[in-house]
Amino acid sequence: MIKYKQFTDTMAASFYENPDLKRERQSCNFDKDEITNLIDGNVEKTKYRRELVEYILSDPSLKDPIPVEYLSHEEKYAAELKKACLLVQKMREPVPKEAKFETLRKRQENGKPLDIGVGPSSVILKEGNALGLHFVMFIPAIIGQGSTEQQNKWLPRALNLEIIGTYAQTELGHGTFLRGLETKATYDPDTKEFILETPSLSAYKWWPGGLGKTSNYAVVMAQLYTKGKCEGIHPFLVQLRDETTHEPLPGIFVGEIGPKLGLNSNDNGYLGFDRVRIPRDQLLMKHSQVLEDGTYVKPKSTKLGYATMVYVRVFIVQDMAQVLRKAVTIATRYSCVRHQSELKPGEPEPQILDYKAQQNKLFPALAASFAFHFAAEKVWNLYHLATENIGKGDLQMLPDLHGMSCAMKALSTSETAKFVETLRQSCGGHGYMVSSGFPRLYGIATASETYEGENTVLWLQVARYLIKTRMDGSGGQSVAYLIGSNLPDNKAVDLSLDGIINLFQRVAAGYVDLAMKELAEHGRQGMAPYDAWNHSAVQLIKAAQAHARYLVADCFVRSVKEDKLSGPVRSILNELCEFLLIYWLFAELKTEHLSQLQAKYMELLSIIRGYAVNVVDSFDIRDEALGSVLGCWDGNAYQRLFDEALKSPLNRNAVHRESFEKYLKPLMKSKL
Amino acid sequence: MIKYKQFTDTMAASFYENPDLKRERQSCNFDKDEITNLIDGNVEKTKYRRELVEYILSDPSLKDPIPVEYLSHEEKYAAELKKACLLVQKMREPVPKEAKFETLRKRQENGKPLDIGVGPSSVILKEGNALGLHFVMFIPAIIGQGSTEQQNKWLPRALNLEIIGTYAQTELGHGTFLRGLETKATYDPDTKEFILETPSLSAYKWWPGGLGKTSNYAVVMAQLYTKGKCEGIHPFLVQLRDETTHEPLPGIFVGEIGPKLGLNSNDNGYLGFDRVRIPRDQLLMKHSQVLEDGTYVKPKSTKLGYATMVYVRVFIVQDMAQVLRKAVTIATRYSCVRHQSELKPGEPEPQILDYKAQQNKLFPALAASFAFHFAAEKVWNLYHLATENIGKGDLQMLPDLHGMSCAMKALSTSETAKFVETLRQSCGGHGYMVSSGFPRLYGIATASETYEGENTVLWLQVARYLIKTRMDGSGGQSVAYLIGSNLPDNKAVDLSLDGIINLFQRVAAGYVDLAMKELAEHGRQGMAPYDAWNHSAVQLIKAAQAHARYLVADCFVRSVKEDKLSGPVRSILNELCEFLLIYWLFAELKTEHLSQLQAKYMELLSIIRGYAVNVVDSFDIRDEALGSVLGCWDGNAYQRLFDEALKSPLNRNAVHRESFEKYLKPLMKSKL
Repeated sequence: MIKYKQFTDTMAASFYENPDLKRERQSCNFDKDEITNLIDGNVEKTKYRRELVEYILSDPSLKDPIPVEYLSHEEKYAAELKKACLLVQKMREPVPKEAKFETLRKRQENGKPLDIGVGPSSVILKEGNALGLHFVMFIPAIIGQGSTEQQNKWLPRALNLEIIGTYAQTELGHGTFLRGLETKATYDPDTKEFILETPSLSAYKWWPGGLGKTSNYAVVMAQLYTKGKCEGIHPFLVQLRDETTHEPLPGIFVGEIGPKLGLNSNDNGYLGFDRVRIPRDQLLMKHSQVLEDGTYVKPKSTKLGYATMVYVRVFIVQDMAQVLRKAVTIATRYSCVRHQSELKPGEPEPQILDYKAQQNKLFPALAASFAFHFAAEKVWNLYHLATENIGKGDLQMLPDLHGMSCAMKALSTSETAKFVETLRQSCGGHGYMVSSGFPRLYGIATASETYEGENTVLWLQVARYLIKTRMDGSGGQSVAYLIGSNLPDNKAVDLSLDGIINLFQRVAAGYVDLAMKELAEHGRQGMAPYDAWNHSAVQLIKAAQAHARYLVADCFVRSVKEDKLSGPVRSILNELCEFLLIYWLFAELKTEHLSQLQAKYMELLSIIRGYAVNVVDSFDIRDEALGSVLGCWDGNAYQRLFDEALKSPLNRNAVHRESFEKYLKPLMKSKL
Repeated sequence: MIKYKQFTDTMAASFYENPDLKRERQSCNFDKDEITNLIDGNVEKTKYRRELVEYILSDPSLKDPIPVEYLSHEEKYAAELKKACLLVQKMREPVPKEAKFETLRKRQENGKPLDIGVGPSSVILKEGNALGLHFVMFIPAIIGQGSTEQQNKWLPRALNLEIIGTYAQTELGHGTFLRGLETKATYDPDTKEFILETPSLSAYKWWPGGLGKTSNYAVVMAQLYTKGKCEGIHPFLVQLRDETTHEPLPGIFVGEIGPKLGLNSNDNGYLGFDRVRIPRDQLLMKHSQVLEDGTYVKPKSTKLGYATMVYVRVFIVQDMAQVLRKAVTIATRYSCVRHQSELKPGEPEPQILDYKAQQNKLFPALAASFAFHFAAEKVWNLYHLATENIGKGDLQMLPDLHGMSCAMKALSTSETAKFVETLRQSCGGHGYMVSSGFPRLYGIATASETYEGENTVLWLQVARYLIKTRMDGSGGQSVAYLIGSNLPDNKAVDLSLDGIINLFQRVAAGYVDLAMKELAEHGRQGMAPYDAWNHSAVQLIKAAQAHARYLVADCFVRSVKEDKLSGPVRSILNELCEFLLIYWLFAELKTEHLSQLQAKYMELLSIIRGYAVNVVDSFDIRDEALGSVLGCWDGNAYQRLFDEALKSPLNRNAVHRESFEKYLKPLMKSKL
């Protein structure tokens, strides 16, 4: 190890606690566990989560010998896959009695699969999980799309990890627009098989997680052809690799797609088919079938697919709340321990947390982490209600639920990505270090802006729902304010929480009306409707965004009102809620000129400053799960930054001998 | 190599040109070279640049055997340092007569050092250059701060690369606020030496580029102590490593700081001193001196430091224009070749470039690349004028130049970072691939938001200048509109370019007045001035941002007016200028309701759509320099994406044998 000068007064000791953090903590005047339990769900769930995290983190085989960011692309895959496999083993084995963790199978059954970004696996896997899609999409696809016989045949094998699957939909040339997918599955009634074919370069599957080197099966979305007719996109269960040797089967071309902005532990892959035959019963046939003779049987409703999309999008909103909690924990703690510049002339450098400009970067994200938590919770509950209703044959809730989940997915991912970057920059240069944790969190947040429905496409879908509702009054609960005379006409400025919510409704409705006027104007000028729609896209997106802010804000206000909270926690959540509402209102309207709101905003910055450190403590994220040298609980940021750098293989020796001898030395010795 | 199914119809052939791009190019109705020459400066400079780039790119020793993104942290350093060294060799050796390139020394003398992000070195080094700071800061520091004797002694050695230096200012605990730096240099009159000391962990130098493993010298900024008194921050020339063995000298603790969000070819480093002695004459003494007996001699003016900062910030604005040109080239070409979704029912999938929502993501960045180009050019010219005046003892221009360069640095870096991310996302999931080029461009853009003056700090400095000017009329040319009755009072809405510029002035002045009112109000409530300043920071930053937009917009308008342009190119630049002005006005005011502007904005989208592809062609960036599979000239995006993925070491074999045998297989065979 390279030698360096140590400073014993700041050395990490197990009992060290930064004095600035300590002071904040000593003045805490609310019960941190109350917020922890609120986020987990209840006291028992907090206890369970803590035990589970301890169970994972106490295992020495799951620790990194060298931080993965120092490894090559190939080494990183191997090192992270090792941890992913060991973690699965650990969670499916009978676990210690005292802990009583759900087995993997139990988690899956309870709708809590090992997820991609922020679940238990994220405690040790910071850049994705090659086995993630197996749990989050492959198994759910079999459950959601497979017939009872198909489930009986494949589910036990998948749940046992006898086979590892992924979900292959996106192609090189086609993403969110599913109808454009090119992969073909043509039914051959003679052999009772489907023939899978990749008809062009752009038809190669591209992006599925875990597809490159890990999975040996996949649910493949392909255009179904039977009796000479295309019946559209359907899911097929396809074996990709030999179960013993792992070699790709004949006609299967599979590999990984290379390094990405983030999530580099996941071997996203490509996949092509050269006339690959699979049995007829590997079309997943819960909703539609192909009979032996090639007759196609339609699904009862095309809306049934909605439910699965809602399910995944609620997960994403939850993920974003968790990503925000991590990012804001790092930035708030670091802002507490970092001293910089001069506030009062002649005084020592103040904590940067005391700068209003800094608070303005941190607290909107803090407030939004609660907003998205409550939003996810609400849609989750509605989703379960809707699923129950579907069981009774009632699909009525689906369109509104779909509209809500699109809006919340697009808003939570775009706001989270933006906030994570603002928080990173609020930590100055040190936020740019991988060891700060921010680059990885950004990799997760911004990926979700694109996957599971690209945000711009989703905004336009939401806009279509809004315009339709405004025109024919057909929409559900979430857009009821747009129908007829429902919109409150309070011209007087009411700045209570309810008043601001009404203001949001009026702003959103205003944008909707503006877009409708534009559409009508284009129509008068002779534009075809689809062309007019395109020409109004900029306005339409604004309308959808204003609506989404209203939805999430409304949900935040209601949740704070309804939840059983102690006085101190209720007032914290009320203040954060009011703060976020004003912040978002500023984004929609240039109402800074409304000096009353501006003054309230500045006042709330000071109030939130008082408890911000304690609120992020109550997110209860362990240092190992946080994965940030800047945001550690003890606040020993500089020492940890230094310690992490000393793990660099480049620091093993004072001189990087090879590059010095071969390149630098000759350069310095060859004078002009 | 792993096998894959090839599609001959889309295979890359040297004569391939995507038909969509071809069509755009055939309809080009302006002279592309005119824009190329405009950006380069003139016809000769374009010719020179093209020959230089060819000279670099035609050298097989500068090509990567494996793309660097697949390498480990250590391998990446070695591979990139190799190229950096060979490039320097190549450029200092007598070059082929027919090319007549400036030697390294000539470039340096002409103020065009090999730069960090986007100069000639960026053609082959996409993630920074370990030797960059030697040219951009070490040598300029010796010139700018060294006495004539010091320059005579050190410059020849530095220019010859006999020594390699960096510039060590930032510390673990201190960044933009220079007075807070802790590193000490105490003069010892007995030995006529300075004793360098790192008094605490937070005093470790942290961040300097090329410091970790590459440099053997550094200009170190430290607090100068002599005769028991601290005289503030001064630059010291310090040898760090033995010139022959490269081992750190006694008392020097040096190493690299680990992986970052970007710029990972650069070995940013840390540096600590344990009573390191250097001779008195290694204090760089052009402006201030320490005499042999320890007497301190003050500099004539403290403003002289400004000039160097202006110099570096102009570079950054130039860099940002170039980063934007690259990013917008990639996104525009890809948007031209990518077909997706449905615009007109029943028709084939349209080019995504035809979607208004897409144009709205691309064209503001396209326009801004010109705006920042002109802004950099203007400040560059002012800088030379100011330097001339300084030579005559006239420092009058400096404060205004400083104010302008702060505002333009902060605006260009923050807008560029934001645009690069918008452009990346406009390319959907594929923009998330490292091979798209976007992640690296973002790494460069966002780093510059923090270095050379953190943006929030700069905004507040600009705001101070604005407030002072508004109060006492003391400011220079760039803030003249804020003085007294200079502000036009055109209440009538004039939407000509000049009218919009006036509108920008009024918006900025409005924010300044609002902030002043707030400051006064806080004062009335008994707040101390420094406290009132902090409480008004959010408004003050808005004022500074509005002012910066005005500055850059004004410069754009004037440049288009003044430059000698052909009719077609003038009208293109006029349209891009008007477009950007409206775009920025929307950011300042929620004037979408001003339907006249909104309609103009949508009309301009359609007009710019007509020539966008040809304008980015005229940026004349070679594929190798662009470094993007999505943005290549021939538009063969999917094939190149695929070809790049096939270079992955993980794709050498169909099965990653080790991880399969060790982890996956045991997992799949161990049933519950």
